[in-house]
Formats: sequence, structure tokens, C-alpha cells
Amino acid sequence: MSKLWGGRFRKEMTSAVEAYSQSIDTDGRMVREDIWGSQAHAIMLAAQGIIAEDDLREILRWLEQARAGLESGEFRLKPELEDVHMNVETYLIEGAGADLGGRLHTARSRNDQAITDTRLRAREEIIEIERGVAALVRVMLDLAEANADVICPGFTHTQIAQPITLGFWASAHASALARDLERLAAAYGHTNLNPLGACALAGTSFPTDRALTTRLLAFDAPLEHALDAVSARDFVAETCAVLAVLAVNISRLAEEIVWWSNPAIGTVEVDDAYATGSSIMPQKKNPCMSELARGRTARSIGLAAQALALMKGLPLGYNRDHQEDRQALWAAFDAVGPSLEVIAGQMATIKVNRQRMAELAGAGFSTATELANYLVSDRGLPFRESHHIVGDLVAKLIEAGTTFADLETTRRLLADAGHDIAADTLRSLLDPAHAVSNYRSLGSTAPAEVTRMIGALRSRLDAADADTTARAQQIEAARKLTAEIAAGVTGGKALRELLPAS
Amino acid sequence: MSKLWGGRFRKEMTSAVEAYSQSIDTDGRMVREDIWGSQAHAIMLAAQGIIAEDDLREILRWLEQARAGLESGEFRLKPELEDVHMNVETYLIEGAGADLGGRLHTARSRNDQAITDTRLRAREEIIEIERGVAALVRVMLDLAEANADVICPGFTHTQIAQPITLGFWASAHASALARDLERLAAAYGHTNLNPLGACALAGTSFPTDRALTTRLLAFDAPLEHALDAVSARDFVAETCAVLAVLAVNISRLAEEIVWWSNPAIGTVEVDDAYATGSSIMPQKKNPCMSELARGRTARSIGLAAQALALMKGLPLGYNRDHQEDRQALWAAFDAVGPSLEVIAGQMATIKVNRQRMAELAGAGFSTATELANYLVSDRGLPFRESHHIVGDLVAKLIEAGTTFADLETTRRLLADAGHDIAADTLRSLLDPAHAVSNYRSLGSTAPAEVTRMIGALRSRLDAADADTTARAQQIEAARKLTAEIAAGVTGGKALRELLPAS
Amino acid sequence: MSKLWGGRFRKEMTSAVEAYSQSIDTDGRMVREDIWGSQAHAIMLAAQGIIAEDDLREILRWLEQARAGLESGEFRLKPELEDVHMNVETYLIEGAGADLGGRLHTARSRNDQAITDTRLRAREEIIEIERGVAALVRVMLDLAEANADVICPGFTHTQIAQPITLGFWASAHASALARDLERLAAAYGHTNLNPLGACALAGTSFPTDRALTTRLLAFDAPLEHALDAVSARDFVAETCAVLAVLAVNISRLAEEIVWWSNPAIGTVEVDDAYATGSSIMPQKKNPCMSELARGRTARSIGLAAQALALMKGLPLGYNRDHQEDRQALWAAFDAVGPSLEVIAGQMATIKVNRQRMAELAGAGFSTATELANYLVSDRGLPFRESHHIVGDLVAKLIEAGTTFADLETTRRLLADAGHDIAADTLRSLLDPAHAVSNYRSLGSTAPAEVTRMIGALRSRLDAADADTTARAQQIEAARKLTAEIAAGVTGGKALRELLPAS
Amino acid sequence: MSKLWGGRFRKEMTSAVEAYSQSIDTDGRMVREDIWGSQAHAIMLAAQGIIAEDDLREILRWLEQARAGLESGEFRLKPELEDVHMNVETYLIEGAGADLGGRLHTARSRNDQAITDTRLRAREEIIEIERGVAALVRVMLDLAEANADVICPGFTHTQIAQPITLGFWASAHASALARDLERLAAAYGHTNLNPLGACALAGTSFPTDRALTTRLLAFDAPLEHALDAVSARDFVAETCAVLAVLAVNISRLAEEIVWWSNPAIGTVEVDDAYATGSSIMPQKKNPCMSELARGRTARSIGLAAQALALMKGLPLGYNRDHQEDRQALWAAFDAVGPSLEVIAGQMATIKVNRQRMAELAGAGFSTATELANYLVSDRGLPFRESHHIVGDLVAKLIEAGTTFADLETTRRLLADAGHDIAADTLRSLLDPAHAVSNYRSLGSTAPAEVTRMIGALRSRLDAADADTTARAQQIEAARKLTAEIAAGVTGGKALRELLPAS
Repeated sequence: MSKLWGGRFRKEMTSAVEAYSQSIDTDGRMVREDIWGSQAHAIMLAAQGIIAEDDLREILRWLEQARAGLESGEFRLKPELEDVHMNVETYLIEGAGADLGGRLHTARSRNDQAITDTRLRAREEIIEIERGVAALVRVMLDLAEANADVICPGFTHTQIAQPITLGFWASAHASALARDLERLAAAYGHTNLNPLGACALAGTSFPTDRALTTRLLAFDAPLEHALDAVSARDFVAETCAVLAVLAVNISRLAEEIVWWSNPAIGTVEVDDAYATGSSIMPQKKNPCMSELARGRTARSIGLAAQALALMKGLPLGYNRDHQEDRQALWAAFDAVGPSLEVIAGQMATIKVNRQRMAELAGAGFSTATELANYLVSDRGLPFRESHHIVGDLVAKLIEAGTTFADLETTRRLLADAGHDIAADTLRSLLDPAHAVSNYRSLGSTAPAEVTRMIGALRSRLDAADADTTARAQQIEAARKLTAEIAAGVTGGKALRELLPAS
Repeated sequence: MSKLWGGRFRKEMTSAVEAYSQSIDTDGRMVREDIWGSQAHAIMLAAQGIIAEDDLREILRWLEQARAGLESGEFRLKPELEDVHMNVETYLIEGAGADLGGRLHTARSRNDQAITDTRLRAREEIIEIERGVAALVRVMLDLAEANADVICPGFTHTQIAQPITLGFWASAHASALARDLERLAAAYGHTNLNPLGACALAGTSFPTDRALTTRLLAFDAPLEHALDAVSARDFVAETCAVLAVLAVNISRLAEEIVWWSNPAIGTVEVDDAYATGSSIMPQKKNPCMSELARGRTARSIGLAAQALALMKGLPLGYNRDHQEDRQALWAAFDAVGPSLEVIAGQMATIKVNRQRMAELAGAGFSTATELANYLVSDRGLPFRESHHIVGDLVAKLIEAGTTFADLETTRRLLADAGHDIAADTLRSLLDPAHAVSNYRSLGSTAPAEVTRMIGALRSRLDAADADTTARAQQIEAARKLTAEIAAGVTGGKALRELLPAS
Repeated sequence: MSKLWGGRFRKEMTSAVEAYSQSIDTDGRMVREDIWGSQAHAIMLAAQGIIAEDDLREILRWLEQARAGLESGEFRLKPELEDVHMNVETYLIEGAGADLGGRLHTARSRNDQAITDTRLRAREEIIEIERGVAALVRVMLDLAEANADVICPGFTHTQIAQPITLGFWASAHASALARDLERLAAAYGHTNLNPLGACALAGTSFPTDRALTTRLLAFDAPLEHALDAVSARDFVAETCAVLAVLAVNISRLAEEIVWWSNPAIGTVEVDDAYATGSSIMPQKKNPCMSELARGRTARSIGLAAQALALMKGLPLGYNRDHQEDRQALWAAFDAVGPSLEVIAGQMATIKVNRQRMAELAGAGFSTATELANYLVSDRGLPFRESHHIVGDLVAKLIEAGTTFADLETTRRLLADAGHDIAADTLRSLLDPAHAVSNYRSLGSTAPAEVTRMIGALRSRLDAADADTTARAQQIEAARKLTAEIAAGVTGGKALRELLPAS
Repeated sequence: MSKLWGGRFRKEMTSAVEAYSQSIDTDGRMVREDIWGSQAHAIMLAAQGIIAEDDLREILRWLEQARAGLESGEFRLKPELEDVHMNVETYLIEGAGADLGGRLHTARSRNDQAITDTRLRAREEIIEIERGVAALVRVMLDLAEANADVICPGFTHTQIAQPITLGFWASAHASALARDLERLAAAYGHTNLNPLGACALAGTSFPTDRALTTRLLAFDAPLEHALDAVSARDFVAETCAVLAVLAVNISRLAEEIVWWSNPAIGTVEVDDAYATGSSIMPQKKNPCMSELARGRTARSIGLAAQALALMKGLPLGYNRDHQEDRQALWAAFDAVGPSLEVIAGQMATIKVNRQRMAELAGAGFSTATELANYLVSDRGLPFRESHHIVGDLVAKLIEAGTTFADLETTRRLLADAGHDIAADTLRSLLDPAHAVSNYRSLGSTAPAEVTRMIGALRSRLDAADADTTARAQQIEAARKLTAEIAAGVTGGKALRELLPAS
């Protein structure tokens, strides 16, 4: 099939070349965006007198038909038409005729058009991810609230370190994920800029109005500089990187659930709905959702590297390499989006074994720091000395095959080291629950402090949610405005009465 | 739908969880392999007396039906059945009944089955890539042969350095790609090992015969150690890395064609069939295939990083993260495979502008080294001194706004520096064609040496090709053997008469 | 040498283990920060009555001595002391004695201390990078201003596309780099949060005041949640990714300079001070700085992947893997920082060959779009039709071995196609300078528009600069405040008189 | 300081540019190699009559002095001399005078020289890594042998799956690492090729003898094609990737040790010499070496991505980006080399808690598969049915709050399901040790099979070791030969009497 850009060419592509160079696979995700962008562009052309209002009417009629055909399945992308842009334009030309349809591409190039579509789609995907993160944060905060004073082991180096509360642990993940929301919002800001009107690379001699398309497409602002507008893909790399950081954060939660599900740890058990069995071992119950989320993080990391490597050393101006931007971007959204939903579901239904948590929280001499602190605050020892004394005590208890649970031996060894501590005091010091309630620093694991932090994180989350929603509404309003103008023009109204006041 | 492994479970998965954890997308590429593996496994079970020969007959009948159904489109994978293994086994159970169909999975686990299928598929993909590389090497050698003495500019630092021949340049790419063939063959060797029989992770108490499945599936050897067999994915990372190195090699050729197509260089022009136009600039002819090949290299790089990051820090034994191995592996084959075909086509049809090549080969004082060498060999100067003299000469010519083409000025400046050279000698020294023919070291750009190297590279290529073909034939023979045994058993013959001598 | 944490241990490390686990190499970059953090921590401990004011005096005296010793070279880090923290604390204990020195580590852990130091150092490195980017942007804007109306070729697909101005090209890079400044500022915001006081992972039972250390160390806020504070390294991955995006932007400029320096293009020439020669080819002048900047971009990309892979699947709480954060972070700053300076210097001194630029700007039928646009705006053709007509015209001119320069043939072919255009009009349409001045869309290459954009970019840059400076001043003020308190206490003043009002 | 290549230049570099472009940091690792390469080159030049034998004598004298000065510390690289090559040549020129010293660089370029040095160094680093891997494999095999029948839990999905032996687990790591040895040997083969004599890119008109330098430098063969020889860095990417795969394999062992050291698992304890304590928690004993090895794997992954991204899209011929090859390569060796030694030490001294292993091996219904297999082999059930029966049994036992240890309940529930099994038989089936000894498939965990595999792996290791040693000896012999020729020539002997027979 002859290409729309084929005037200069004397030979057709082979089918292998066509298959290789088409971008239908990735463009399929932004057909709606291509049509919307074309509607906005056509309205602007007419508003500026570059095309006639009668021509606009026909163009909008056929674009609307394409949009409806897309939903009904009647309009389908053909790979031999290379990309979504040529598909939509061909649809228009076949419908409205070459004389009318051929006017849409005035003062536009595929270079600005493709990246406009990509940005329109990407911003909505970012919003979806933000919603997924927010939902997961909410689940973690609910879990934290319900377990604000449930004692559980705190780990460093994957070894039992100090007793904490489960609410403290769950809210730590919420605190980390809250930063992902900030990064996503920033990536949104770099994404939601309007390149339309940059044309091939240099702008145009037609008197276009880029503010109008910016408004109709709900972009935050034009990406003014035409050469930058068609060349830049930094928002792609930034978004892929932000998604990879998010995926890594999820993978850390996933890793913990995998190991905590191991019967030897046994502090949590995922719901049957979030586990799978073995084809050979009848007893197995595997925390597969966490394993998959962890594994897919590797995709996210690879895609961040890909998006960066893609643009390394490319001269300005559109290069066909740019076509690969969407391959990376869509894959990056898909690599992490579903994990958010499934992990949120898993965490909302997870069973907590409080008894096992308490047991482990007291194991491994976890309250040794409290004892050392006591020697500092009550006996005036320098911390280093008290640290050494308690370290030595632990070594002696291990050699004796016992633990802090053996209060008498513990007391005796301390007394031998010159530090006589009353049994009640010592019992209290070595009790995980007491240790936890005794914490008092800002951000600590003390239940009251955890409760305060949950409240603060809920406030941050509400603000982030409100911002996400406002952006989604702005997009929806602009889509509606464009549709209304299109319907109005098609219905015979004068364009000037339909346009928003500038 | 109830899972085959569901005996221990009291709750169904949600659809989001099912969608998340299914691997149908990537498994779709190895259904034929899963059936073949099941045929081999079933034959082995019966040969060892673990299942009855009558049962084998029925199992093979239904597996054959699945295989035929796959080709006819009647047998399609259902995502709710989780993966290819459960699909095939369910097909069998629904056909042959639970009593018979349920016997196939004896002495097998999805852990060894999945990686068996993956290896069976991957080795064939490697063979396809090898064929693609070989075809590209052949094109480059043909190009080299046809242009063994065509003078063209040789670049270092992207600056004109010394005159070379186009045949020298083209054979350099062939020489590099020949190493890719070696790496691919090594990756094949690490791929084509039989994990089947490792079961879940520890082998089995059934008296299996892994040598027989190895033979029926054309594996080079069993991957003996059962725990290693189900845990290892180093062949995935190795293969992805080898494909990435290959992609990088292609990207370098692509980069050169992109720039050489720039009219200001203008040494080559891709055929219309391998170029695309612009939607806005009617005059444009873009070397898009090379740009795409270069851009897709970023995918290959990202996938190598992904395959490595995937396995980092995973404990031995199957983890669900392993499921992501195929996602990376198939994507890695797809990222580079089509580039091979298209770039080979592009290079086979590329137009060479010999005049422009000769022009640039003589530009940029490209024969300065020859002049410096002459001062060493004929006048006995140390190379450093002659280098300095010629460097100074070049600077003076530039300041005077002229080049070596101005023989008189060149002679005079040399004479001023104390080195009188006869005009004829100097003209000859500064002539690119003379310089090229004057080379005499092993591996140099001298046409005779280039011709010799083309011959040597052809021999290496033929050997590699023969190796690839031998491997492909071995696979085909084993597939045929399995099919014959299956047909024989189904047709009522005794298994022992059909088995190969061990 | 016995470790400060060694109470529980019965055996020394081997030297291989010591060498392997020490972090002196990377810690060497944050000794000043460790001392500052210790000063702030000690002041806070005394302010809260956790240590005595007399003890504070001695501690501050010895910390000041360490600081001075660091500058004089008298205090050097010893690898056998494992890390910077143990070095400083050991210096203190050896100086002030175990009774006093051993009190500093009260209510602190290496877990919060290490990441505090890292954040203190990283924020200053980010500021340095911001200054480097700003300087490069300024150079590009100066270059743009000086060449706002210098005609040069605009490329797409590395092929000559349309005439633009050099000012337009240079300001495009400035426009892109301005977004890097935004990303760096955001990364700064995620970096400059205070983890000190989180202790091991859970906070502490000592009544610490994290707001005070936040103030003394010029952090923007505490990173409240103790477990998040010691676990999080997302700012490391974010910063590495942001630096990689920046490096990629630089690599694109570098690529252009490399190719434009090729004599066959010849539009620019780097100053001798930014080029290197060849050891064998006396005539060579290589744009090595750009090649190095491009090559080092690979480091930046690899480091972003590294920072992400590092944290994948790590459970919360400090893990020794975290130690690798600085390895990645410092390397990431070093990979791109020097490139900024050198490329800025190269671009400030680059020679522009205006004649060659004009020549290429008119080559390759670069004004074809203008001709097509004219057929639309003046003759009322649909753009697609005019595009086809001009495309066909170009093909015919190429077949005839001529170009737009042959005005007569061009006119005749157009007339044959039914479009008679007056010679003057046609000459004007096909003139690159006229085309450029004819552009009128927002963000276009028209000199007036370029000048406007340069002004707008300067304003953005000034605002970014002011922000960077304000942050740097805030840090300096806090450093001074800490020093004054330390001097005051050491000099015998009461701490309460020296502390800032809260 | 004026550069040796500076004849054409009229301006010096600034110090920032000098600092930026020097490669002393990475070249410092191959000074010995540069000198050896220069010796071989000089000997070849004289052997071919390109320089006089008298000149050779002086050149060799001064090169030997440089070599000795390097060891004594008297000869140090100066950054202002740019790289190792210019340092050595300058040393020679300053010593022997410009007339003599200036002759060494005849028929050579830094382009071939740099990559010669890099390959010479890299091959020795690969040998070191091979030795490190072999030592680790040996430790794992020793551990396996000493624990061939020690029962321990086998995991899949990090959940207890089936009982295995510790010897089986340890030998699985050995089996995996054995493939790393194969990949390293292949990378060695691609590394140990001689590019010397390729000169700038095209060879030379001097009658060089590349076979002689190949012999003197113990290369396996010349890398014939001159343009390929100076352009190719695929061996760098391959080596970095191979090292990354190795690092990932180590990280998996590291992960297991980290978690198994957790007291709640408690199956192993690292020796005090391989653990570290906490600065705040006196009781902590952290398996830091494993954590560091796991963390450094991220470096290895990043470096593989870097080495690939570096060469993407680079045209043939030396580009200054190539200089970054060593940065990646040396870092890649350093990222994994020390881990090998330290992890080997850790594994050689690790304490195994056999009792805890046995306990966990029997937990989690780990012998369920055996029971299911029994219903197949003894009762003739299809595996799927027996799998479902045992799965249901496990669910019922869990609901009843008990395990297989409650033999009576287990028997009763089986009987209810229609399968009466004698108590003795059932006890035996559910006993982990019995299960393990009952395995009989090739590569299974049965102690006898593990012992057989250990033997087979030792044989493979011995062969690999022998190969490594043979290569190291070949290098040493060539180094000695070169030294003897140099000493002979310097001592006045005729070169022809000293050269090896060709």
C-alpha cells in the first residue's frame, strides 16, 4: 500500500521491512489520544483560519466516527499503515476524501504528533499508578492502625534486632511509598507538557495557536521550544526510573512476606486466595504473589536502563530510535501496575500470627540495647562501656546455652560484672512489650508515636489523592470540552461561539 | 476453576490474582515443547514400568490430539488454567479421564517441566539467531568482496584518519560478528541440557531413566544435579547478554549507515525499500531501519540487566520469580532477531557512492601517516620526529588554507623543514589508492590482504553454519523419533520394539 | 585491633575480611560530615540532659581537634577501624578517654549515623552538579544569543530536514538541561531529610530532640519514621537516575559535536585546548572531550541500574548491602560532574563555520516544507496533496541530477504539475534565511522567537540559581551555627545561651 | 607539557581538560603490560629490520629500567602525560634520547597498543577469578562431602518443600559455579587475541611480523583484521557479563546464608571471624560478608549494563569512548574477586546445626510427596488423585492443629479417605531420612548419588584447574622468553640467535 509520505519514493517496502518498522503494537494504546489530538489540532486550525470551518466540520465528523468505530471495534489499526497516525489519517481520507482529509496534517508533523499522543497516554497511566500506590498505602496504614501495639520482631541484617510493633513496620512501608507518590507527581509534571505545534522540529510559518491546543488537551503548558519538544524523551527515562524505584520499594515488602511466610519464621500467612500450590508437593502453600512482584521488579530495573540507553548519544531532532520510547514506557507501567493491586489485596487479607511475633520479638537477646541504655541512664556508664558489658553478657549466656529468659543467670552475670539490678527492674527491661512502650523519640516504635505517624501519613495521602483527582478531573473536563466543540461544530454551530474564552 | 494442585486449599483465587500469576502470554511460545516433553516423559515412565503400557497408549493418543489441535487452532490455552503445563494436563484429563490423565505427572514437577520447555524453545531460538547472524555475515562478506579495492575513508574518533577500502570496512563487521556466532554456540551448549527428572528439587524415588528423555528430546546431556537443574537460570542471563553484545555490534554498523547516509557525507544510500519518508517534509529519505536497529539495542541491554537482576539474591529451589525468565528470554530474541534480517536486506541492496568515498578518503590529510612513515623508512628519522614534522606541516597547510592537494606548497614546506622529496614520490605517497596498496602487514587494508581475510572468514562461517545445521538436524531427528514411537505405541506396537538402543 | 562493637565476639576478623568489609574508600568523602553530625548529636544530648555539659565540652573539644586534624592531614582514616564512624569515635576515645568518649554514641547507632553522613555529603554534591548544569546552560544561552540568526541545518533522522538557526539549536539544549535542574532540585528535597535519631531502627528510650539536630545540620525536616529512616535508599536510586538522565542529555550534545567536527560536515571546530592528537596520524584533531562525555554516560546508566538492583528484595532495617549505596552515589556524581565543566568550556570556545552551516542549511531540499506550505496557504491545496506534489518534484530533480538551486527546472516541473509560481516568489520560498524568518509559531526557529525564548530560559535559570544559592547558604549558616556553639561551649559558655530559639 | 602528538596543535590543554582526559587511574593497572608489549614490539621491529639492532639494544635497556623502576617505585606515572603509553615512551625518550626513543612507536599506534595492554592485563585477571571460583567450588565440595548424608530442609518458594541432604545443597552450588568456570574460559579465549600491529586502524606499510609479537606476548592468535582489532570491545562486555552471572550465583548462596543465620531458622552460624557486631545492639552477630557479597552483585550488574551501553552506536575505529573500557573492566574484576575469597573462607568455617536442620527437614509436611508417590506405586492411584488426597489430608491436619508427627490422626484420616496404611510403613514414609535414602533417580539427593556427583564435579574442577594452570604457565613462559631476549640483546648477543624458531 502506498504510503502517505511516498511522493519522493520509487519503490515499496518489503513486508519484512513493513513488519519491522510498524509501531502498531505500541500505538494501539494511544488511538483514542491520537483522535483527541487531531480534533484539537483541527479546531485550532479553523480557529486560526488556516482551514475553513466547513472543512473542520467534515474532519470532526469523521474523527468522531473513528472514535466511535474504535469503541465498537469497527475501526481497527492496520499494520501496513505503519502507525496510528497514518491509520487515523487514512480513515479520514477514505471517508471525507483526499481534498478534505488531506488538510488535517497542515502545520503538524508526525514528530510532534507522536510525542503528543505518548504524553497524553502516559499521564493517564501515571494517574493509574498513583491510584494504585495510594490504595496500597491505605492498606498498609489500615494494617498499621489495627496492629499499632502488636509486638513483633524488628530486624537488621535480617537478624532479630529489637522488638517493634507491627504497626510500626507497616507504617514504615507507607512512609516509603509516600515518597513514590511525590516522584510520580513530579514525573507527571514533566510529562504533561504540550509538544503539539512544534511540527517537524522548527515550528511553522502557519499562524498556529499552541495555547488553544494546550487548553483543549488539558496540558499544563506548551513545551515551547520546538526542537526540544520533538527531541526530548527525558520524561520517558524519568518515568521509567520513578516506576523502578517504586517497584524496588514493593519488592522489599514482598521479600519480607516471602520469608515471614516460611513456617520457621511463621509470623504471617497469606490468604489462600493469594497463594498457589505445588504440582508435585501436596502440602505446599506458596506466597507466589510476593515472589512475582519481586521478580517483576527486575523488569522495571531493566526498563529504566533501556530508556536511558535508548537516548544516549542521539543527536537532536526526531530519530526513528525515538519510536522505542513507548515500548519502554508501556512496559514500565505494565511491569508495576498490576503488582500494586495484587500486593494491596494480599496485605489487606494477610493473617498475622501475634503469638509467633511476640515469641520472636523476645528472641535473640532483642532487648539488649534497653539493658545497655539502662546502664547509661541509671548507672551513668558511658554507652560504649555499657555496650561492651552487655555484649559480653550475651556471649556468656550463649556459651551457657541460655538466654535472657533465664533471669537469674542474667542477673548473676551482671552482678559479677559489678552491676546489680533488681529482679523486677531487670524483668521489665528485658520484656519486649515494656521496651516498646518505653520508647519516646520522634518517629519511634512506641504505639502512641506510631498512631501519631499513621495520622500524619493519612493526611499526606489525602493531599496526594486530592491532587491526583484534580488532575484526572482536569483531563476529563478538557476531553468533554473538545467533544462538545466537536458536537457543536458538527451540529452546525459557529466555532467562535463554542471556543473557550482565552 | 479448581486448580490441579488445589487439594490443600480452601479458597479460590480472585480473578485479579489469576490474571497476575498466569504465564500464558509467555508459555504460548512453548506449547509444542510442553507436549513433546510430556510425550518423552510418558514414554520413559512406561519404559521403566512406572506406568502401564496401556496407559501410555492413551496418554500418547491424547497428547497427539493436543498437538494436532494446536496446529488446527482447536486447542487453545486458557489463562484461567494458569500455565501451559496445566492446560496440557487438563486437556489430557478431560480427554482420557482422570484415572489415565492423572498418571502423566508421576515423577515430574512443574519445576523441572517448565525449565525443560524453556530450554527446548530457547535452543531453537538460538539456532534462528545464529542463522540470522550467518546471513548478515554473508552479506557483509559479499559486499566486501565486491568492493575489495574500492577506496573509502577510514575513521577514528569519527574523523577521517586513513584511506582504507570498503571491503576492509565490510569485512571488519564480518570479523566481529563471527565472534557473536561463537558466543551463541556456547550459550546453546549451556541451554541444551536436560533438567527433566529433577522433579521438585530433589529427584524422585521412582526409578526414572533420565538418559532416555535426554535422547528423545535431543538434549546434549542431562543437567544432572536436581537442585541445580531447577534453580539455575544462568543460561538465561548468559543468552540475554550474548544477544545484547550481538545487538551492540549491529548498532555500530547501523550508526555508520545513518551518518554515511547524511548527504554531507553521502558515501552510501539505502535502497528506497529500506527507507521511509516524512509526513511533513516531502524531500526526506530516512535510513529508518538502521535507526530502529540502533534503538532496539537499548531493549537488548535492558533485558540483559533484567535477567541478571532477576536472579540476584534468590535462594536455590524454584521461586515464582523464575517465571519471569521467559519474559526476558523471549523478549531478548525478539529484540534482535528481526534486526538481523532487515539489516542484512539493507546491506545487500545498499548503493555505494565510490566517487564520494574516494573524495573523502583523500580529505583531511588522510595520508599523513604514510608521509611520516616514509621519513622513517627512507630518511631514517625516528618516528616521533617524523610525526612532529608532518604534524607541523599539516598545521601550516591549514593556516595557509590549503591541503596536500597543493603539492607544491607541501613540497616547499617539507623542504623548509629539511626534507626534500621528489614531486613524483610525494604525489604517490599522498595518493590514497597508492597508500592502500602499499600496506603489507597481516590484517591490513591492502586489497590482497582483504581478499585473503574474506576467504578465511568464509571458511569460519561455513564451519559455524555446519555446526548450526548439525544441531538443527539432531533436534529434528529426535522429534521424529518421538513421533514415531508415539505413533507406533498408539498403533498397537510394543514399546520395547520402538525404543532406540541405549 | 579490637572492634568497638566486639563485646559479644570471641574471635578477630582475618585481614582479608577486614579489607573486604571496610568502607574507608567511600567514607573518606564524608569525614567532615561525620564530625559535624557528631557535634550536632552531642550538643543535642547535652541540651536534653542525656549527657552532662562538662562531658559535652570535652567531646566537642576533641571533635574540633579531629576536624582540624583532618584539614592538616594529621588525622587520617585507618582501614582497620572499619569505617569513618569508628575512626572518629576511636579518635575521641583515645583523646578524651573511654569514660567521656564512650558517651557520644548514646541514643545513636551507626545505622542512622551512616545515612546521616551520606545525606549531608550528597546534598552538597547535588548543589555542585546544579552549579555545573547552570554554567553549561549559561554557555549554551550565550552561544544561542550570539548566533540567534545564524542559519544552520536542522536534522531529523540525522538527515538535513529544515533550515534553523544556530541559536535555536543551542537554546534547545538549554531548554532540555533546564529540566535537569528541576529534577536535581527534587532529588535534593528527598536527600535533605534528617534520619539522625532513628537509632538502630526503632528510635530510643532516651528523650532526644530530633528537631534540634535537624536545625543544626540544616536538614529541611526530620525523616520521622525511624524504620523508614534507616532502611530507605530511594533517594540514592533517584539521584543516580536523575544524574543518568542528565548525562544522557549531555551525551546528545556531545554526539552532535563529534559528528559536526567531521570535516565532511565541518560546521564546527573545537578549540585546540579541547582536542587531542593521534600518536600515529600527525594530522588528526580529535574532539575527545565530547567522546569522553559520551562514553562516561555509560557509567551513569550502569550506576542507575546498580542503585536499583542493590535494594531490590532487601528486607527493611539496615542490611550491610546498604554500605554499597555510597559506592554508587559518589561514582554517579563523579561520572557526570567533570563532564559538565569540560563540555561547558568546550562550547564556550567552539568555532562556528557559518558559511558551511549556510551551505548545508540549503542542501538536501531543506525548504521543501515551505514550498508545500505555500501550495496550501496560497493555492488552497490540501496539505497531503501539496506534500505529494513536492515529494514528486524532489524525486524528479534528483533523477535529473539537480536541486532547488536550479530554479528554472524547479519552476518548470512545478508548472508541469499545474502550479505556476513566479520566479521571485519561488526563489524566496526556497531560500533558507527567508524560510527561517518566515516562521511564526510559538517556540519556532524564527530569530525573534529564539531571542524571546533565550530571555525566558535566562529567567528560569536565574530562579534555579537563586534556589541553589539559598540552599547552599542555609547549609553554610548551620555549619557556622554548630561551630559557634562548639566554640562557645569549649570556651566555657553555658549551652542554653548558645542554642538557637526553637 | 607539550604532548608527543602535538605537532599539529597551537594551544595547550587546560588543566581541567588534562585531568578529564587522562587515563592514569585505570592505566596504572597495566604499566607492566605496556612495557612488555613495547619490548615485544621493539624486538619484532628489529627482527624485521625496521629498526637497527643497536637501537633495539638501547630501547630494551631503557624499557628494562622502566620495569625495574616500576617495582622499586622510582618510575611513577604522571597524569599530565595523559596515559601509560605516553609515560613509558617519554621515559624512554628522556633516557635514550629522542633519536632512539622516538623509534619505538614505528608501525604502532596507541589504538592497538592500548587494547593490547588491556587484553594482557584482563587475561591475568580472568585467571585470578578462575582460581577464586575454583577455590570456592572446592570449599563447597568439601562441605558437601563432609555432609553428604546430613538431612536438611529443601526449599522451594522459600518454603520447606522436601527433605534433602546438606551435601546435596552444597554440591548444587558447586555444580552451578562449574558453569561459571566454563564461561570464564570462553571469555579468556576472546580476550587473549593479539591486536598489536593493527596500528591506527588499517595496518601499516612497514613489513611487521605479528606472529612474533603474538608468540612473545603469549597470545593465542593474532586478532587479524586491523579495523576489527582496534574497534572491538565485545570481549569487555562479554567478560563483564560473565562476571555478573558469577556474582549473581554467589549472591544466591549469600542470601541463603543470611537467612539461615537468622535464629528463627538457625541452621547455620558463620564463624565470628566472618561476622560483625552492632554499634548499638550488643547482642548482634551479623552475617555481613554475605550481605556485602550480595550487595556488590549490584555493581557487577551495573557494570555489565555499562559495558554494553558504552559501545552501543559507536562507529568502527577507535573512539575516545573506548578509554572507558578499562574503567568498566577493572571495576568488574574488583566487584567480584574479593567476594570469592571471603565467601570461600566463610563457607570453609561455617558451623552447621544438624539438629535444627533435621527438625526443619521434617517440618511443613515435607514428606507429603513421598506419601503421594506411595499411593501411586503401591496402590496404583494416578498421581493427580494421590496428590489431591494428600493435599486434603494436609489441610485437615492443619485445621486440626497437628502434623504428620501425629501418626495416628494421619493414619485415621487416610483410612477415612479409603487408604489404610500400616503404621510402620507410614512412619517410614513420613521420616525425612528414610525419604532421602529412598531417592534413586540420577542427580537426586540420595547420599550415594550425592557422593557420586561430588566425584564427578571434582573431576570437572581438576580439568578446569589444569586448563587455568596451563594458560598461566604459557604466559609466564612468554614473559620469561621476552626477558631473556631483552637480557641477551642488552648483553650484546645477536637478536637472531635469541629469537624462537618460528
